Amino acid sequence: MSRAEAVPDLRSEPAFPAAGIADRTTPLIRNCWYVAARSAELGDAPLGVAVAGVPVALFRTRDGRAAAVHDRCAHRSFPLSRGRVEGDRLVCGYHGIAYGADGLAACIPADDRPAARAAMRVRAFPLVERPPFLWLWPGDPHQADEALVPGHPWLSDSGWAFATGCTDIEANYLGLHENLLDTTHFSFLHAGNVGTPAYATAPIDLEVTGDRVRQVRVLEGDVLPALYDRPMDLVGKPVTRTTDSRFVSPGWHEAHAEVIDPAPAPGRPVRYATKILHAITPTAQDRTRYWWAIARDYRVDEPDVTEMMRVAIVEAFEEDRLALEWIREVQDRDGLGPVPERSVKPDRGGLAMRQIVARLAAREREAG
Amino acid sequence: MSRAEAVPDLRSEPAFPAAGIADRTTPLIRNCWYVAARSAELGDAPLGVAVAGVPVALFRTRDGRAAAVHDRCAHRSFPLSRGRVEGDRLVCGYHGIAYGADGLAACIPADDRPAARAAMRVRAFPLVERPPFLWLWPGDPHQADEALVPGHPWLSDSGWAFATGCTDIEANYLGLHENLLDTTHFSFLHAGNVGTPAYATAPIDLEVTGDRVRQVRVLEGDVLPALYDRPMDLVGKPVTRTTDSRFVSPGWHEAHAEVIDPAPAPGRPVRYATKILHAITPTAQDRTRYWWAIARDYRVDEPDVTEMMRVAIVEAFEEDRLALEWIREVQDRDGLGPVPERSVKPDRGGLAMRQIVARLAAREREAG
Amino acid sequence: MSRAEAVPDLRSEPAFPAAGIADRTTPLIRNCWYVAARSAELGDAPLGVAVAGVPVALFRTRDGRAAAVHDRCAHRSFPLSRGRVEGDRLVCGYHGIAYGADGLAACIPADDRPAARAAMRVRAFPLVERPPFLWLWPGDPHQADEALVPGHPWLSDSGWAFATGCTDIEANYLGLHENLLDTTHFSFLHAGNVGTPAYATAPIDLEVTGDRVRQVRVLEGDVLPALYDRPMDLVGKPVTRTTDSRFVSPGWHEAHAEVIDPAPAPGRPVRYATKILHAITPTAQDRTRYWWAIARDYRVDEPDVTEMMRVAIVEAFEEDRLALEWIREVQDRDGLGPVPERSVKPDRGGLAMRQIVARLAAREREAG
Repeated sequence: MSRAEAVPDLRSEPAFPAAGIADRTTPLIRNCWYVAARSAELGDAPLGVAVAGVPVALFRTRDGRAAAVHDRCAHRSFPLSRGRVEGDRLVCGYHGIAYGADGLAACIPADDRPAARAAMRVRAFPLVERPPFLWLWPGDPHQADEALVPGHPWLSDSGWAFATGCTDIEANYLGLHENLLDTTHFSFLHAGNVGTPAYATAPIDLEVTGDRVRQVRVLEGDVLPALYDRPMDLVGKPVTRTTDSRFVSPGWHEAHAEVIDPAPAPGRPVRYATKILHAITPTAQDRTRYWWAIARDYRVDEPDVTEMMRVAIVEAFEEDRLALEWIREVQDRDGLGPVPERSVKPDRGGLAMRQIVARLAAREREAG
Repeated sequence: MSRAEAVPDLRSEPAFPAAGIADRTTPLIRNCWYVAARSAELGDAPLGVAVAGVPVALFRTRDGRAAAVHDRCAHRSFPLSRGRVEGDRLVCGYHGIAYGADGLAACIPADDRPAARAAMRVRAFPLVERPPFLWLWPGDPHQADEALVPGHPWLSDSGWAFATGCTDIEANYLGLHENLLDTTHFSFLHAGNVGTPAYATAPIDLEVTGDRVRQVRVLEGDVLPALYDRPMDLVGKPVTRTTDSRFVSPGWHEAHAEVIDPAPAPGRPVRYATKILHAITPTAQDRTRYWWAIARDYRVDEPDVTEMMRVAIVEAFEEDRLALEWIREVQDRDGLGPVPERSVKPDRGGLAMRQIVARLAAREREAG
Repeated sequence: MSRAEAVPDLRSEPAFPAAGIADRTTPLIRNCWYVAARSAELGDAPLGVAVAGVPVALFRTRDGRAAAVHDRCAHRSFPLSRGRVEGDRLVCGYHGIAYGADGLAACIPADDRPAARAAMRVRAFPLVERPPFLWLWPGDPHQADEALVPGHPWLSDSGWAFATGCTDIEANYLGLHENLLDTTHFSFLHAGNVGTPAYATAPIDLEVTGDRVRQVRVLEGDVLPALYDRPMDLVGKPVTRTTDSRFVSPGWHEAHAEVIDPAPAPGRPVRYATKILHAITPTAQDRTRYWWAIARDYRVDEPDVTEMMRVAIVEAFEEDRLALEWIREVQDRDGLGPVPERSVKPDRGGLAMRQIVARLAAREREAG
C-alpha cells in the first residue's frame, strides 16, 4: 500500500527542513476543525480559549446551543470571556455592550444610536458540538463544512470504554504530529509503558492519500508493554501487535491499535482493539493543547482497567510533553546557529505530514 | 457647558485609534509633574523609583530636603538607590563615588583629578515635596513650574478625613485615564461597589479647556451604591448623585463627587462631598503606579467610616487593575492582527484626553 | 612594571564604551578553555551544560574518560544530555540514535543504511579533565592546545587547604572580569568582609603583557578585613597586604593575595599566602557560571578555618552577583537612552582587559 513517490526520497535529500516542509515557524492552519474545549467545560459562564492563535469566547444561549465569538470587545478590547451571559447575549464586563451569537451588538449602554450598534460587532466562529468535544473552525467560515468534523464513535458507543485527559505543551503542534507518526520512539522515550525493545525495528508501511497520512507498523511474536499486558491479561505472552497511525488533519490524529493472540486461552478473545484519539489544538505558535482519549473493546465494564490504562498513557504523554519542550528549548538556545536536522527511514510519515501542512499553509497564504 | 467641536465627531469617525489620538505606544510625557513616592516612604535610606520610564534615586540631605538624581552611576551604571546617604551626598555602593543633590561627583575614591570629578555627573531632577506626596518632573527642567503641581487641600485640612492606597498596574497609564473619564463602567465592572444599574444611562456633560477635560454626570432619584450608602447612612434612599471627573494632567485626575439628599432627616446634612484623587505615574510604557486618596467632609471623626470606604474603593480599583491588565493581554496575544476599536457616546471624554496627550507628545517630540 | 602605553589614556578619552573596547554585546569568545563542570559532577549519567553559549552534553566512556558533544541530536534536536550512556556511546532518549565520543552515529534504530549513519553526526569538543575541573574548548578544535589550560596546583597540593563553590550570575561575564580587576570596590561593596576603608586609596601598579593583565595593589600598615583577620589570627594587627590580580584568559582569573606580618609573634609566620581562583564560564550572552576556590598555606589542617573563609567569601561573591545583576537591569530598563560610562584611574586594568577581549572577538570574527 506504500506510495513512496509522494514522500521525500531520503537518500537524495536527508537534510531537514527542506523547501516545502513545514516547521515550527509555519503559520498555523486556520481552515480546519479543532477541539476548542470539552462540552462539559462550558456551562452557564463564558469560557475563554485560544484556537490556532485566535482568542475565542465560548458561551451557551438559552437553548443550550454553544456559540463562539472573538474574545475581544470591539469597543475597548476587554476579553468578553470575562463578562457574563444574559439570555442569548454575551455581555462585556467593562461597559456592558451585549453581543448575540452572531457577533452583532444588540445593546450599547449610554448610546442608543442604531448606527453605533451597527458598527459594533465581533467576529463569530463556526462551532459544532459533538460530545465530548466542542469543535471550532477559526478560518474562513465559508469553508467550514461540518462533514469534515472528525468522527469518534468509540466515545459514544456502549461497546467501548474509554479514559480521557488533556495536556498543555509549550511547543509547536507539528512536533506532536511528528511524534505520533514516528512510533520508533516507543522503544526509547516510552520504554517503561508503551514500547518494547523490539518495537523499534518492526517494519513500517506508509500510505499518503491527499492530505492524509497512514502508517502501519506490525510487530509479530513479541510480548506486550505495560500499557496493554495487564489490561488484556496477556502478560509475557507472544502476540501480534499492529499500530495503524493516521494523520487526519492538523487538528486530529487517530491511532488504531490491534493485538491478535494466536493461541487464546479458552473463552478468551483472539482480537483486542484499542483506539487512541488525539485532538491537537495549536493555541499559539509554540503552545499546544492536547486532548486525548484511549478507548477499548475489551473488559469494558471494569473501571480498574480504565484507570490502569489512563495511568500508563498519562505517564507516556508526560514523556512526550517533556521531549517536545526540551527540543524547543534546544532550538531556542542553541549557540551554533541553524542546525539542519537529518531524517531517517521511519521519518517518511512525519515528512509527508510536514509536506501536507506546508501545502495547506501555502493555500491559506495565497487566499490572503 | 459642552464644547463639542473640541472632541471627535463620533458619527463620522467611529474607528479608534485614529490619527491624532494617543494610544499605549505613544511615548510617555516627560514634561509633567508626577508623584514619585509618598513623603513617608523616603527616610534615611535612598529610594529607587521610576517616573515616565526614567529610573530615579530619591534621597534626603542633612536638612531633610528631598533630592532626585538619575538612578545610574555615571561610572559603571550601578543603581545609586542601592548605595547609602552620607551627609548631603549619595554614595555609590559599588566603588564609592559620592554625588551631591545637584548630580555632580564630589568625591571619587582612588582618583583625585579635578577633571575626573568634573566629567562624572548624573542628571538631577526637579522635585517638590507636598505631603503626603513627593512630586517629580522627569522632563526639561526649565519647564518645571512649581505652580503646575496639582493641589490637594483635602489631604491636609482637618475638615476632611481620607484613606489612601497604592496599586501597581501592568498596563499603560492612558487606559487608566480613559477608565476614569468613562463612568459608564461603574454599572458593570463595579456593580458591587461603585455603580448602580441606572448609572450607565445618566446624562453626561463634557467640557474641554486647553489641556484639561471635565465631564459631569448627574443621576437623579436613584439609590446609592455600597461605596456611599452606609458611610452616608442613606441606605435605600433616593438622592441626586453628581460625578465631576477631571483630567488635569497625564499625572493627575480629580473626581469631585457630590450627593444631595432632597429630604434630609432632622439634623442631617443636605450635601455630602467626596473627593477621589488619582495620582497616575507611568513607571514604564506598560506599567503604572497608581496612588489614590478618597476624602470626605462627613463623619470625619469616625475611623470606621474611613475603613469602610477604603475597603470598597480597594475592591473597585482591583477590578480596574484586572480589566486594564486583561485588555493589555488581549492586545498582546490577539491572533487576528490589528483590530481597530470602536467608540461610542460616553467615550467623548476619553477621546478628548487622548487627543490632548497626542498633542503633548508631538510637542515633546518636536522639542527633541 | 607599568606599561601605560598599552592601556587607554583616561584623560583624552574618558567616555566608555569606546571603539575597540568589548562590552556585554561583544560575541562570546569561543577559542578558549573554560570550566564546563566539576569532575565530581560527572558520573554515570550524561550531564548537560552550556559553554560560551553552546549547549554541550558531557559523558564518560567505559574507561572513565570524559567526552563532550553538542547537546542536540542531529536527527530531531532532542538534548542528548537527557538520554543515557551505554558502554562507550551516548544514546538519544527520543529515538535511540547512539553516538560515540567522536560525535559519529554508531547505530540508528530502524535505519541500517551506512549512508544514513555517515550523515548523522554531532560536533565533538576538546575536553581535558584536570581535577577538580573539566575544561572544554568550544571553538576551533585545531587551536585547542592543552598547554593553555590554566594550572591550579594549589588545589592538589597537600601544603594547601581550600574551599570551593559555584555561583550563577544573570549578567555578562565581562562585568565579572572587570569587577575582579577593580579592587577599589572592596572598600564599598565588600565593606563587611573583604575591604577596609583605606584599601580604596592604596596605590595600583599595572602590567599588560600580550593578552594578559596583571594589577598589583599594596596596602601597608592597615588592619585586615573579616576574610583574613580571624583565619590568620591577626585581628587588629597592622600588616602589609598585597593583592596581585591577573586576567589570564576570558575563562580564568587568578588573585594571589599575600599578607606580611612585620612583627610576628614567637613561632608565628611572617608571610601568609592565599590564592583566590576564578573560573568564569559565560553560559549565555548575559549569564555566567562562576566557579571559585580559595586556597591558603596557613592552618591547612583546620577545617574550621576553611569554613570561616568559605562563609566570608560566599557573602562577598553574593554581593558581586547582586551588583552585576542590578547593573544589567539598569542598562536594560533605562529610559534616558544610551548613557556612556565614565572611567577613572583604577579602571585602567579593566579597560585593558576589555581591549584584549575586543581583539580576541575581532580575530574570531575574521576567522569566521
